Amino acid sequence: MAPEPAPEWRTSAWLNTPEPLSLGGFRGRVVLLHAFQMLCPGCVAHGIPQAQRVAKLFEGAPLAVVGLHTVFEHHAAMGAESLRAFLYEYRVPFPVGIDAPGPAGDPIPRTMRAYAMQGTPTTILIDAQGRLRRQVFGVHDDLLLGAEIGSLLAEMEQQRLDATDAAGHCTDGRCEVGAGAATRDRLS
Amino acid sequence: MAPEPAPEWRTSAWLNTPEPLSLGGFRGRVVLLHAFQMLCPGCVAHGIPQAQRVAKLFEGAPLAVVGLHTVFEHHAAMGAESLRAFLYEYRVPFPVGIDAPGPAGDPIPRTMRAYAMQGTPTTILIDAQGRLRRQVFGVHDDLLLGAEIGSLLAEMEQQRLDATDAAGHCTDGRCEVGAGAATRDRLS
Amino acid sequence: MAPEPAPEWRTSAWLNTPEPLSLGGFRGRVVLLHAFQMLCPGCVAHGIPQAQRVAKLFEGAPLAVVGLHTVFEHHAAMGAESLRAFLYEYRVPFPVGIDAPGPAGDPIPRTMRAYAMQGTPTTILIDAQGRLRRQVFGVHDDLLLGAEIGSLLAEMEQQRLDATDAAGHCTDGRCEVGAGAATRDRLS
Amino acid sequence: MAPEPAPEWRTSAWLNTPEPLSLGGFRGRVVLLHAFQMLCPGCVAHGIPQAQRVAKLFEGAPLAVVGLHTVFEHHAAMGAESLRAFLYEYRVPFPVGIDAPGPAGDPIPRTMRAYAMQGTPTTILIDAQGRLRRQVFGVHDDLLLGAEIGSLLAEMEQQRLDATDAAGHCTDGRCEVGAGAATRDRLS
Repeated sequence: MAPEPAPEWRTSAWLNTPEPLSLGGFRGRVVLLHAFQMLCPGCVAHGIPQAQRVAKLFEGAPLAVVGLHTVFEHHAAMGAESLRAFLYEYRVPFPVGIDAPGPAGDPIPRTMRAYAMQGTPTTILIDAQGRLRRQVFGVHDDLLLGAEIGSLLAEMEQQRLDATDAAGHCTDGRCEVGAGAATRDRLS
Repeated sequence: MAPEPAPEWRTSAWLNTPEPLSLGGFRGRVVLLHAFQMLCPGCVAHGIPQAQRVAKLFEGAPLAVVGLHTVFEHHAAMGAESLRAFLYEYRVPFPVGIDAPGPAGDPIPRTMRAYAMQGTPTTILIDAQGRLRRQVFGVHDDLLLGAEIGSLLAEMEQQRLDATDAAGHCTDGRCEVGAGAATRDRLS
Repeated sequence: MAPEPAPEWRTSAWLNTPEPLSLGGFRGRVVLLHAFQMLCPGCVAHGIPQAQRVAKLFEGAPLAVVGLHTVFEHHAAMGAESLRAFLYEYRVPFPVGIDAPGPAGDPIPRTMRAYAMQGTPTTILIDAQGRLRRQVFGVHDDLLLGAEIGSLLAEMEQQRLDATDAAGHCTDGRCEVGAGAATRDRLS
Repeated sequence: MAPEPAPEWRTSAWLNTPEPLSLGGFRGRVVLLHAFQMLCPGCVAHGIPQAQRVAKLFEGAPLAVVGLHTVFEHHAAMGAESLRAFLYEYRVPFPVGIDAPGPAGDPIPRTMRAYAMQGTPTTILIDAQGRLRRQVFGVHDDLLLGAEIGSLLAEMEQQRLDATDAAGHCTDGRCEVGAGAATRDRLS
């Protein structure tokens, strides 16, 4: 089944960034969107540290890590001021959007609803073309998450090379196979 | 720098497999070669469990996990019989080759020498064309290892599609870009 | 140096208990007082889980585990409502007092000040006579904490036996040595 | 039930000590006897590291940590030479006795049999009078083990004080209560 465009993010505020972010601004980069609640034990023990490790390990790669605070319970206990203190104390370095409250009577915020998330933590991967490629509820394995990231980065690199090939090497009705191979290798 | 062919494995015996294995037999699959010593604490605590997790998580994918017992110290304490008991007690499911002893006077076994390993554990990735793509001495991070595996698997899939494209779609001096895209997606 | 009486607790509210608690009410039991802040990473990752394990492992022993929320930073982010949600989400079963705010201009709450705590987490042991016996700032080792608890419990048991001996057996100017020995053994 | 004398140790050799040890030589000290097999995963991952931590944390206290290699399976794989390499590689600092083989036809070694151990790891506590006070098969909790050690150390200290009291203070038909209290306090 072909991947679908990821739903736009609907937020009421952003922390750790000078200006609001939108999904469109990340075209050309793989995005790890980490949806969490600051009082969700699994998020604090596993999800947030994992997102922090990804942010650090893939620094320099065309990958962005973005947090999304999707509060669907204890709303009064997890307001913006509490979140700000949380991000400071836990040294969360990446931008975090506050998911916009749902319509009256709906405790589920709007982005969480649009992605049909089951709860927190939820780990979401969006490819360089803005398509939703992976959504995992609960603790996600480092090896698997790494493989998914590596695959999307490799795919993106391949598309870049194909584009280059198309422009530069598939001329005169000929495609020079492997034209981009020399620069293609991320591993060795 | 273009990747080089991985050195052939030189072993004196194999465990967990009915017949001896050689690198050539793994063409078409990515290989994770885990070099260890059964009395190396870092191997037992980190390397072996990581290789076991990879074997389990990527079951079904074109990836093979192979162990290599590269004893370069305490040779008498880590003979074949001890290794056999170790593999049994630690429930190591994948094939393990015993690295062939070096020439007289050299405590370093032959495959370890050929790969210029610095010690154990060493994690080695070989691509589907038999080329050495990654070699890490010491504890290797799950996220990074996952990304390297994901990248090699994606690259392999891409080459398979390119080959298909080449055979089927680059006809009449034209290459139909994206011909294999529909089946290309491993993630969603 | 002889141990001193532990300072009284000064709190503004209590959670997880139908009525306010005071140190005096714990005479005859060893008390583990765990001082924490709900947004302190070391408390959440180590201190709170350790206190929870102590509460569970020593259930039935004359030992009480009591929490103390000693907020000295981000006061607005860690109010009573946030704490209540935190205790619920983290399944904290023991009573937690909210340390009373200090006088105007002092961010350090009153009990924290009285015990001269350096920060959070702080683990405090108070003996069955209400005396302060141990105060550790930072992550405290399970083995050492266990030994301290075991020692205080054994001491308390000994005093109980001595008291029994004194009342029942040290009569007529004679002390029957070992009178309580048969019931003295907690281990086997 | 009153504690019984711990069975004597029957060993074929000792490592990490210049001369053979016997239980009798530890009178006046609490003994943690850690029975293990070098190829037992639970021993390597939990039991040995725990015994190492105890040895380090209670350095200076009247507590001895002693290992016992109770091989009851894969005998050929865990001979003295393999054990020696294991102790070296895992930096085991305490003395380790090799449990004496059982009579012909019995795979269970003699000390293991005498203590009726169920397997490895087994953690055994022997008090300062040589009595068996605790025997736990499998992973033992740090907090509980700590409490048991603390209790035995406190009991031993108490007995020392009682002995002092008896000799020095219970004279003329009078026992001065608390005579040893000032020096009694291990915690503060």
